[in-house]
Amino acid sequence: MKASILAVGGELLGTDRLDTNSLVLTEVLRRRGVELVSKAVVGDDVVEIAATLGALRERAELLLVTGGLGPTRDDLTREGLARLLGRSVAVDEALWGRIERGFRKLGRRIPRVNRKQAERVDGAEMLPNRAGVAPGQRIGDAAPSPRGTTYFLFPGVPRELKVLVDDALDPWLAARAEDGAGFDQVEVRVACLPESVVEERIVPVYERFGDRDVSVLARPGEIRLRLRAGGPAVSRTPRLARMEAAVRKALGGAVFYVGAIEDGIEFEAAVGDLLTARGETVAVAESCTGGQLGQRFTATAGSSAYFAGGFLTYSNHLKMRLLGVPRETLREHGAVSKPTVLAMASGARERCGSDYGIGISGVAGPGGGTEERPVGTVHIAVAGPAAAGSHFEARFPGDRARVRQLSTQFALELLRRMLLPGETGRDLLPWSAPRGEGSA
Amino acid sequence: MKASILAVGGELLGTDRLDTNSLVLTEVLRRRGVELVSKAVVGDDVVEIAATLGALRERAELLLVTGGLGPTRDDLTREGLARLLGRSVAVDEALWGRIERGFRKLGRRIPRVNRKQAERVDGAEMLPNRAGVAPGQRIGDAAPSPRGTTYFLFPGVPRELKVLVDDALDPWLAARAEDGAGFDQVEVRVACLPESVVEERIVPVYERFGDRDVSVLARPGEIRLRLRAGGPAVSRTPRLARMEAAVRKALGGAVFYVGAIEDGIEFEAAVGDLLTARGETVAVAESCTGGQLGQRFTATAGSSAYFAGGFLTYSNHLKMRLLGVPRETLREHGAVSKPTVLAMASGARERCGSDYGIGISGVAGPGGGTEERPVGTVHIAVAGPAAAGSHFEARFPGDRARVRQLSTQFALELLRRMLLPGETGRDLLPWSAPRGEGSA
Repeated sequence: MKASILAVGGELLGTDRLDTNSLVLTEVLRRRGVELVSKAVVGDDVVEIAATLGALRERAELLLVTGGLGPTRDDLTREGLARLLGRSVAVDEALWGRIERGFRKLGRRIPRVNRKQAERVDGAEMLPNRAGVAPGQRIGDAAPSPRGTTYFLFPGVPRELKVLVDDALDPWLAARAEDGAGFDQVEVRVACLPESVVEERIVPVYERFGDRDVSVLARPGEIRLRLRAGGPAVSRTPRLARMEAAVRKALGGAVFYVGAIEDGIEFEAAVGDLLTARGETVAVAESCTGGQLGQRFTATAGSSAYFAGGFLTYSNHLKMRLLGVPRETLREHGAVSKPTVLAMASGARERCGSDYGIGISGVAGPGGGTEERPVGTVHIAVAGPAAAGSHFEARFPGDRARVRQLSTQFALELLRRMLLPGETGRDLLPWSAPRGEGSA
Repeated sequence: MKASILAVGGELLGTDRLDTNSLVLTEVLRRRGVELVSKAVVGDDVVEIAATLGALRERAELLLVTGGLGPTRDDLTREGLARLLGRSVAVDEALWGRIERGFRKLGRRIPRVNRKQAERVDGAEMLPNRAGVAPGQRIGDAAPSPRGTTYFLFPGVPRELKVLVDDALDPWLAARAEDGAGFDQVEVRVACLPESVVEERIVPVYERFGDRDVSVLARPGEIRLRLRAGGPAVSRTPRLARMEAAVRKALGGAVFYVGAIEDGIEFEAAVGDLLTARGETVAVAESCTGGQLGQRFTATAGSSAYFAGGFLTYSNHLKMRLLGVPRETLREHGAVSKPTVLAMASGARERCGSDYGIGISGVAGPGGGTEERPVGTVHIAVAGPAAAGSHFEARFPGDRARVRQLSTQFALELLRRMLLPGETGRDLLPWSAPRGEGSA
């Protein structure tokens, strides 16, 4: 089976938006062994939508369309497909009734304009949308198309698309997959190691298993490795297990997640899980990150079990007043220094009554850098039950957003290393050392 | 003139790369007043390239192709276009001679495989590449295409593409542009109004100017309207000004930005600018948002001018201890209540010595909801120099991330309304009222 993806929306033809929904679709196609032969983007234009779908169906049996299912007059995907197939579009009154009832239950009046979202291409099966109002649609097209194309229409809102892919597309593809053939994948996630160091360390894995079945995805402060094994289930399962073991050996304590791609947890949630398992809590004292560390800790449901609270202390005045950082420490060493972040960490820990405290202070830029402390200089400390806290000084590359993101990433890692038995934090070194960007 | 863009390359059909070259091409098309009608991506396959170009030329007179001009056997763009046009591809010996001489001058032997890069589609004009080996090509196609399509072939390496766009495409477009023709755009940004309300209010704009030149981009808690006016400069400039005035009138105080798309500022920065202009500061006290509000305030460089600091108080204990929320308030009204967030806001304001304080407390979910306070219930308060603070209660839809994002968005809006002269916060109502989600 071959597939093509069409994204509909004038905003995707501008200079500041790219279609990223296709990546979600590509992932599930790959998992199910379906070849993606092309992608396309068109604006909100019935003729253009119909013509493009008409061209794509010449070379694919599965067309996945995102966007253009909303309530406004430039949501025209339904009309475009109907035009191609020579079918009509009409409001599905049963569906409209359900939508109305849902709104009424919430005590909400549904704007009349939303009726458009209950429009169905004649012959389409509606795909319920747990995450929003507009359902998806699946339409078969045995007659006019040479290939008997199947069309899936999805909302363009990423969150709603993901839900519909899981609920409707993936099961549909799974039911059609050839018996037993396919491939398994596992994802390994590593924080705070640079891509070059990860690549260097996994050379033995490449040598033993080849490089076709390992892909490396780099994000700021995090690397994700995808390991793949194909062929019949009986041979690919043990092969994948051997690959996984080899990667674990190569990367050691830096690995914070190994498992299915779809179960992959965020780094902050992995650290939260470690705290939960130990029945311990953490508090934060943030300067240059201004709340991002707290926001990451609390992004996960149930974080109240391990996140006590914190302080956002931008000024020296508040570092003293709220956290009890001694005036002399600030005068002697400055706000961006090891003694200051250690005092911030202890202050947060004591005032929140938590097991650990994290202090961050740095120069996020673009202004505020000096020769001694250029933009990107960040000090991070963790105070815990032991007398001596843990400290890391970094010189992060990139702009303000990048420096802040890496700061919270390394703060999480510094705490994580403290929570792992027998860990020394040694692996934090390689990230900065080759670039001369910090010291532990 | 209408244009389409095709990116060639199997790597662009995977899960971790997107075609970004098209943004460079889109920008120059926009500048020269050429309408982009579609974009496409195909793999390294002659048949697929030829078929896609064949479909695209039905609806565009200008086809811009990137990638597939390299020396390897899967660089097939030249072959694909030649197949479509029924022409041949042959090494341009004069060009090959120049390439060889260039390499020799650098003291390098050129690999034989590079001869492929001197291949020319019969009838094409070669476009010299100052930044690399592979030249671009321009081919006219008067005969077989209904529209007399012109094809540009560009290398996929971004740096080389940019040079060729400047050297070859832009001058070609400039020479063809109708005198002064083109279009202008302006973006209007609005926070905390639902899309349906915005659509309803701008009906008069649609009625007066049509709906083709207005596009609506919805994000969580923010709507961006793009207004376009085309034609000769002498008429489009006043037309755009009239559209802008009509939209401003329709949306009133909800508008926080009007201007060029590329200058558009984030909502939190717009609020920061208001504070800066007044020489005032703000502090935060966050419960369910856990630091996100502080992180948004401090995302902008120079935010220390208006952001004092804050408190992350997840537990009742810390709300009392750090913010001075009275025990009786929590006992009588609960943590998610108007009196509690008002006390949090005042506590943050006093302890940080700022002009304003913002308190947020809510049920972000997925757990923790009750019948009285279901998931999505959020109370927000702003305390300021005036005796009575401002308060907003919402019942936000969506998951934890959405509830938290909307909470900080509405907190920013509640403060912004307080900073605008003569504003009552009345416009905050429509967002929630039709859905029964809150009261001001």
